[in-house]
Amino acid sequence: MASWLPTLKTETPEEGYDLAIKLSRVAVKLTQPDAEVRDRLRPTYAEDPDALIAVSQVVATHFATIAAANEYWRDTQDKG
Amino acid sequence: MASWLPTLKTETPEEGYDLAIKLSRVAVKLTQPDAEVRDRLRPTYAEDPDALIAVSQVVATHFATIAAANEYWRDTQDKG
Amino acid sequence: MASWLPTLKTETPEEGYDLAIKLSRVAVKLTQPDAEVRDRLRPTYAEDPDALIAVSQVVATHFATIAAANEYWRDTQDKG
Amino acid sequence: MASWLPTLKTETPEEGYDLAIKLSRVAVKLTQPDAEVRDRLRPTYAEDPDALIAVSQVVATHFATIAAANEYWRDTQDKG
Amino acid sequence: MASWLPTLKTETPEEGYDLAIKLSRVAVKLTQPDAEVRDRLRPTYAEDPDALIAVSQVVATHFATIAAANEYWRDTQDKG
Amino acid sequence: MASWLPTLKTETPEEGYDLAIKLSRVAVKLTQPDAEVRDRLRPTYAEDPDALIAVSQVVATHFATIAAANEYWRDTQDKG
Repeated sequence: MASWLPTLKTETPEEGYDLAIKLSRVAVKLTQPDAEVRDRLRPTYAEDPDALIAVSQVVATHFATIAAANEYWRDTQDKG
Repeated sequence: MASWLPTLKTETPEEGYDLAIKLSRVAVKLTQPDAEVRDRLRPTYAEDPDALIAVSQVVATHFATIAAANEYWRDTQDKG
Repeated sequence: MASWLPTLKTETPEEGYDLAIKLSRVAVKLTQPDAEVRDRLRPTYAEDPDALIAVSQVVATHFATIAAANEYWRDTQDKG
Repeated sequence: MASWLPTLKTETPEEGYDLAIKLSRVAVKLTQPDAEVRDRLRPTYAEDPDALIAVSQVVATHFATIAAANEYWRDTQDKG
Repeated sequence: MASWLPTLKTETPEEGYDLAIKLSRVAVKLTQPDAEVRDRLRPTYAEDPDALIAVSQVVATHFATIAAANEYWRDTQDKG
Repeated sequence: MASWLPTLKTETPEEGYDLAIKLSRVAVKLTQPDAEVRDRLRPTYAEDPDALIAVSQVVATHFATIAAANEYWRDTQDKG
C-alpha cells in the first residue's frame, strides 16, 4: 500500500500548506475512525468560529514543521 | 493561476506579519469554503474576546515560521 | 521490561506520525491510569469536534519533535 | 509612514518582552479594526482569568520568536 | 536542599517523557500551592476529557524542550 | 530603575523554570494592571483546573525559550 506521507518535501510553500492541512486531518481520522460520525460532526464545527480557529492553529503547527523540513523553500524561485 | 503563497520571504518584519495573518485566514477558508457562511460568522467572533485572542495565537505561530524563514530580517536596515 | 519509547527514530514520516499519536496518548494514560474510566470517556470526546481538534494539536506538537529528531527524513527515499 | 515593526532587534530582554506584547495586540486590531468595539470588549476580558492567561500564551509565543531573533541577548551585559 | 530539576539530561527518551510530565505538574503546584485543594480538584479533571487533553498538550511542549536538550538521544542505542 | 528582566541566563534549570513562571505572570500584570482586580481573580482561577493547566502551558512555552537561551544548561554540572 502506498504511504499517505512518503515525505515532508514539497515543491512550493503552497503545497507545504496543503500538506499541513492533510496532516491536521489525519489525527482526527485516527481518533474517530468512523467516517459517518465525522461527516455528522462536520457541519457543526464548520459553522463554529472557535472550531475553525482551532483547526487553523493545528495547521499552523504542522506548517512550521513542514517549512523547517523544506528549509523554508529558500532555494525555490518565486513562481507566483 | 498565480500561487497565493509563492514564497515565505518578505522585505520587512511588518510584511512578514501581514503574511502571517494571511496564512492564518487561509486555513479557515479551506475548512469552511462557503464565503457566505464565513461572512455570517465574522461579526460573532470579531466581538468575542476569546476568539480574537485565539486568532492572534494562530498569527503568532505563523509569524514564528515566517521570521525563521527570513532569518529574522537581521540583515535588513531599520526603515522605521 | 521493554521500554515503550526506546527511540525517536523512525524509518518514514508516516511511522513518525504514528509515534506522535502514541506519545499524545501516553500522557492521558499517566494522568488517568484507570483504563475503565478512559474507556467511559472515549465515546464522549470521540464525538466532540473540539476534543478531536485538541487531540490533533497535541499530535502536531509531538510530530514537530519527532520530525526534528529524524532530521525531517531528508535522506529517506520516497517510498509512497 | 513609519513602520510599526521596523525590526525584531531590541537592546534588552525586557524591551523584547514589550515588543512581544505589542505583536500580540496588533493581530487583535487587524481582526477587529473598530477601536470602539475593542474598548467595549476590554473590561470584559481584563477581568476574565481565562482570557488573561490566553493573552499571556500569545505573548509567550511572540517572545520566543523575538528572543531567537536577538540570539537570546547572549552578548548583552546584564544591566539590571 | 536538593534541586528538583538539576538537569534536563536523561538516559533515554522514556525518562525524558517522565521528566516532561514532572515539569508540567510543577507549574500547577506553584500556582496552587495548597495540596488539599489540588487533591480536591484532581478527580474532576481526571474525568474531564478536555482537561486530560490539555495536560497532554503541556507535556508535549515540555517534551519538545527536553528532547532538544538531549539532542533527541541520537547517540543512544535502542534498548527497547 | 532596575530591569525586571536583565537577562535570560540562569545558573540552573530550576532557576530557569522560576524565571519562566515570572515571565508568564508579567503578561497578565501588563494586561490587567490593577492589582486589586488581580487579587480578586486569583482565588477563582487557582481552584479551576482548566486555568491551572492553561497557566502551566504558558510556563512551558517560556521555559522552552529560556532553556534554549541557556543552551539547555549542558555545561552545568549536576548539583541535585
